[in-house]
Amino acid sequence: MKLATIRTHDGTAAVRVDDDGAVELGAADLGAWLARPGWKAAAEQADGPRHSLDGLDYAPLIPSPEKVICVGLNYRTHILEMGRELPAYPALFAKFARALVGAFDPVELPSGSEQVDWEAELGVVIGAEVRHAAPEQAAAAIAGYTVINDVTARDFQYRSVQWLQGKTFERSTPVGPWLVTDAEPGEISCEVDGDLVQKADTGDLVFGPAELVAYISQIITLGPGDIIATGTPGGVGHARKPPRYLRQGSELVTRVDGVGEICNTMVRGS
Amino acid sequence: MKLATIRTHDGTAAVRVDDDGAVELGAADLGAWLARPGWKAAAEQADGPRHSLDGLDYAPLIPSPEKVICVGLNYRTHILEMGRELPAYPALFAKFARALVGAFDPVELPSGSEQVDWEAELGVVIGAEVRHAAPEQAAAAIAGYTVINDVTARDFQYRSVQWLQGKTFERSTPVGPWLVTDAEPGEISCEVDGDLVQKADTGDLVFGPAELVAYISQIITLGPGDIIATGTPGGVGHARKPPRYLRQGSELVTRVDGVGEICNTMVRGS
Repeated sequence: MKLATIRTHDGTAAVRVDDDGAVELGAADLGAWLARPGWKAAAEQADGPRHSLDGLDYAPLIPSPEKVICVGLNYRTHILEMGRELPAYPALFAKFARALVGAFDPVELPSGSEQVDWEAELGVVIGAEVRHAAPEQAAAAIAGYTVINDVTARDFQYRSVQWLQGKTFERSTPVGPWLVTDAEPGEISCEVDGDLVQKADTGDLVFGPAELVAYISQIITLGPGDIIATGTPGGVGHARKPPRYLRQGSELVTRVDGVGEICNTMVRGS
Repeated sequence: MKLATIRTHDGTAAVRVDDDGAVELGAADLGAWLARPGWKAAAEQADGPRHSLDGLDYAPLIPSPEKVICVGLNYRTHILEMGRELPAYPALFAKFARALVGAFDPVELPSGSEQVDWEAELGVVIGAEVRHAAPEQAAAAIAGYTVINDVTARDFQYRSVQWLQGKTFERSTPVGPWLVTDAEPGEISCEVDGDLVQKADTGDLVFGPAELVAYISQIITLGPGDIIATGTPGGVGHARKPPRYLRQGSELVTRVDGVGEICNTMVRGS
């Protein structure tokens, strides 16, 4: 089952996306929907107003998540090829909700940055409150998967030892188009202007989705609508020789097999 | 004028704290109050239900801020005494709302950490929406000041290059008791079990409040109720020889002259 948040003529709505249209669930957005007990069964049976798939306008999957937690280097092959040791703990950092945009929205090039880079990521969406989760509880708290591009202003990221300022520019992070509740994520890839720049297997994550949920829940309660961006594989533009960055008009396609695909055009920020 | 969020018998309430009692403003918490246009003049004139100062139960100053942004090393004297150069840009990281507790609440010792440390900080609270703020706009967007202790689990902080996991433990960060709208912050200090462990002048900040607001607003919109923790001076426990950490029962007093004082007892986390 695929669930999303779409923009309607009078706001946003949580929907189930079927093969023949989108069906409103009866909540203002997917975050509000996931906070309801029994959301999954209710979503399967929902039969609200319908929308044609043609021209569906996807909002950020969860427009106002309480938390967006991102993971640093997390692809085994990429870490090893860089000659580093596998980490004992995930590197975690945050992103604010205002950074998020919809699956096909323009992504703003941060003004003042000359080094805007791509980071295709598998997104994990939480569907239940968990704290100090055992592994099986952690797995059960995952509502499903989505697609994220953790677009990063490298020059701002490396202005200090903390990455936040390169990671949370307004309207810089596309997420969506939907949450898939019953998929096994496969290959992850990223294309820039038609060139395949990242390609990896989401099974190669050092810290997998359930492990991340269990780990983070030792620190803080995770709740419905929280998003975890699980890290990006090799192939980012900053590591290329010469480096390659996103520019005005660049088209960014981010795909996770079994989950979905998002496509965003870079525009000049405000 | 002092504004706060207190716990009442049926939830929380934004209040003005006068010398002879607290007066309800008519909003569920201070974050909701600051989001109203003209909040300052309306707060001065508010005349709602009154509460005795005796036994006033302070909630986290802003219970659910959209953003809590923290600044790393930011005291000039401390940076220079450590032989480092003054930074060209602030080091910014985030904290999630669930980390916050009230001014006199117990602070939870994160389970699994053996190195829980103090960090007295001046807090800045935003009172208006700002993006790409010029210096004078930035200053005008500051609602006022508060007191924060950015209690940190050093062992978790240094598990990776990103500090978030040592900084955002549930119920670990006291903030309050109030927002002062018209004060000039003076000396900042921290006492642990009666020992003065930190003492500095908030005028010694490398990046001052308005400068931080202007800088952060280049990256993302700041809005009413957002909190900036401006960094801690020298004297943290981790840097002592031998190191000193907070333990169950430790009493932590954090004070900013002209702003206020908070006092928290460390308790074993869940």
